[in-house]
Amino acid sequence: MKAVILAAGRGTRLFGEGGTAPKVLAKVAGSELLYRHLKLLRDRGVEEFIVVVNPWTEGEIRKALQRWGFPSKVVVNPHPERGNGYSLLQAREHVDGPFILVMGDHVYEEAFLDEALKGKGIIVDSAGSFIDPHEATKVVVEDGYVRDIGKEVEGEFYDTGFFVLDLNIFEHAQRVLEEKGTVEMAEVVKRAVLPYTEVRGYLWMDVDTPKDLERATKAIVRRSRKSAGGDGIISRLLNRRISLILTERLVNRLSPNQATILSTLVGLMAALGALFSVALGGILYQLSSVLDGTDGEIARASLKESALGGWMDSVLDRLVDFCFLLALGLSLGAEVPWEVLSGAIFGSLMVSYTSERYRGATGRDLYGDFPVLLYLGGKRDERIFLIMVLSVLGAVRECLWVLAFWTNARWALAFLWVLRAQRKRGHRPKPMPRP
Amino acid sequence: MKAVILAAGRGTRLFGEGGTAPKVLAKVAGSELLYRHLKLLRDRGVEEFIVVVNPWTEGEIRKALQRWGFPSKVVVNPHPERGNGYSLLQAREHVDGPFILVMGDHVYEEAFLDEALKGKGIIVDSAGSFIDPHEATKVVVEDGYVRDIGKEVEGEFYDTGFFVLDLNIFEHAQRVLEEKGTVEMAEVVKRAVLPYTEVRGYLWMDVDTPKDLERATKAIVRRSRKSAGGDGIISRLLNRRISLILTERLVNRLSPNQATILSTLVGLMAALGALFSVALGGILYQLSSVLDGTDGEIARASLKESALGGWMDSVLDRLVDFCFLLALGLSLGAEVPWEVLSGAIFGSLMVSYTSERYRGATGRDLYGDFPVLLYLGGKRDERIFLIMVLSVLGAVRECLWVLAFWTNARWALAFLWVLRAQRKRGHRPKPMPRP
Repeated sequence: MKAVILAAGRGTRLFGEGGTAPKVLAKVAGSELLYRHLKLLRDRGVEEFIVVVNPWTEGEIRKALQRWGFPSKVVVNPHPERGNGYSLLQAREHVDGPFILVMGDHVYEEAFLDEALKGKGIIVDSAGSFIDPHEATKVVVEDGYVRDIGKEVEGEFYDTGFFVLDLNIFEHAQRVLEEKGTVEMAEVVKRAVLPYTEVRGYLWMDVDTPKDLERATKAIVRRSRKSAGGDGIISRLLNRRISLILTERLVNRLSPNQATILSTLVGLMAALGALFSVALGGILYQLSSVLDGTDGEIARASLKESALGGWMDSVLDRLVDFCFLLALGLSLGAEVPWEVLSGAIFGSLMVSYTSERYRGATGRDLYGDFPVLLYLGGKRDERIFLIMVLSVLGAVRECLWVLAFWTNARWALAFLWVLRAQRKRGHRPKPMPRP
Repeated sequence: MKAVILAAGRGTRLFGEGGTAPKVLAKVAGSELLYRHLKLLRDRGVEEFIVVVNPWTEGEIRKALQRWGFPSKVVVNPHPERGNGYSLLQAREHVDGPFILVMGDHVYEEAFLDEALKGKGIIVDSAGSFIDPHEATKVVVEDGYVRDIGKEVEGEFYDTGFFVLDLNIFEHAQRVLEEKGTVEMAEVVKRAVLPYTEVRGYLWMDVDTPKDLERATKAIVRRSRKSAGGDGIISRLLNRRISLILTERLVNRLSPNQATILSTLVGLMAALGALFSVALGGILYQLSSVLDGTDGEIARASLKESALGGWMDSVLDRLVDFCFLLALGLSLGAEVPWEVLSGAIFGSLMVSYTSERYRGATGRDLYGDFPVLLYLGGKRDERIFLIMVLSVLGAVRECLWVLAFWTNARWALAFLWVLRAQRKRGHRPKPMPRP
């Protein structure tokens, strides 16, 4: 399937009257509006994109498309003033069957697209939770088809700017053009008596003003929050709440890798700080733990998740943990309980090692297979919080003892559970459905 | 597809004249002959098994089949003395299309089965590398079909005991029965003028005597050796050579888990031993490293590989490594360079952590993606060998320094390579083949 993306808008409200920057290259939650459409639709099987642009922004959009590498054609609308339907008409000869039409200045969350792609005609929504009802285009329907559409009409639905169309639509657009000299999509939709599909309860909105950009960014960051399974209790109750606020502010400024580096640097500073003041070190350590959430949040919100990025984040987390424990040891001066310290270093790493090795071996999540482990704690967010509290209290020795015991008990219990599961399962072949 | 397994032989040569043990439950390389057929054919898509047994061993075979849980029917041949073709006839009403016929007392390696299942008629082999040519059944062919078959004939091929047949074969067997009162498969094959398929160069043999069992076990252990990619240089040059000899002797006695426990216990003894004599500890540690190869070898040879078993082996390896390093520290008495020791503990674990986390994140092998890492060494077999050498030389301090430096440099370099790879790749979508 192909998708036509209308990107000929001038973005004057976004960049000011004199601006020539293409609106679809405005960044929402760390990624350009156009990139979001391409990435999300490509992930859902769209094979080729036709991007309709205006003559002034053509060069810039071409450059961006080349950088991203999606299979796309650029089509220039020489008369953007003739309306967005006129832009659609420019795509006519590049489409040869049912296709998707997207308003380039809209933003959609993934779940919206999953549903919308199953629909037909104009995709509408009765909630419109993220838009301004006065500005929005309303849709009046009757017997499954559009009866009227426009900003002024009183409809129960909102136009989401997303369409699943067939080639007929070009005939209708052509008629409108011949009659009026300009073509607005609303007019075309009304003439075509399009069917409609409601997709309800998801994030979608059009982005016209800097304020919209900000609102869209916030909404996307909030909605691309990691599923809670991977987080420990401190993360859920404390770290995530702060890191999401930070991410809202950082997502357009930092790449995921830069956020990883930032949290690593703060973590290493914490270790260094602990050499001078254990309490200060502990607080910085907890701060780095909060920051540690932002790289993943930025990656998810900006659609830039990468397996290697996750790997690097984990490896650096281990390094920071080691450095901080080493610093705690050094802070004790002459009499270091180094056996306990070694145990704490080993145990902390083993909590991560056992679950990563499990994923590598089985492709599954250790905590998913043995949810009881979640109740035992010992995850990084929980360990760091404990270290901070005990550091502030000046109880470094006790902290090392608790860590050495807790983390090693934690992975040893995981071991026993896996052993029991393997015993139960044995080497029996998996049951196969019999016909 | 279904498979008929002839398992009505009495195994007198294997268990003595008075024995009633079913021959197909004799263990080769840690698994019963029958289990091997079921497991290997099931893994290759065979959906149901018909196992033909004699009245005296029926109970025992039923029990084994129930324990293993493969979808199978047991059919009793009340007159095993009428020949193996008479056993085949008992399966007649349980087969309804093309099927596989296997002599239960044969053993085949996996690659043989991959090829044989693509064949037609009788599967033959001109090499017969693992069998006694005097005892073997020879096959004479002409124009793609069997012309003669028997122990006495002069044929260029050997009968491998594996057939891909259709229902016709029962007609021929029935005729032979009516004429002679007994049915040998050789006679049936000759009458049916079966097509033949040559499968060349793989391990297959029939198992008649205790000596055959031993030979088959050795051959399977040798041929199920792990691909060299995962082994370090000490493993390839030293450890594997010894562990394979041990595995040949242990595979029928120990389960993979028991071998894991054995090598873990020797490793923990090594750590304990190092408290008294570092040299003794080092040698025991190297011994445990050799033994550490046997669990995987036993699992592969006996077809009992399990993801959880591999996980437990890895986790216990990490524990042994930690305990030994801790013991090295304790052996130094009062002045322990605990920062260096901590570094060695951390680095050793990180070499494993980085590669396991990589597999979990990408599903691929870190060493496969960055083969240069193999040349840097630092794998467990290499670390342990170094520790042994330096322990015997009494150079414990130097040993800790070398380990701390080597292992941490090793994972840090892995990190840099991954970082570079990620930079190069960026967040571009993967190229998609254009039609």
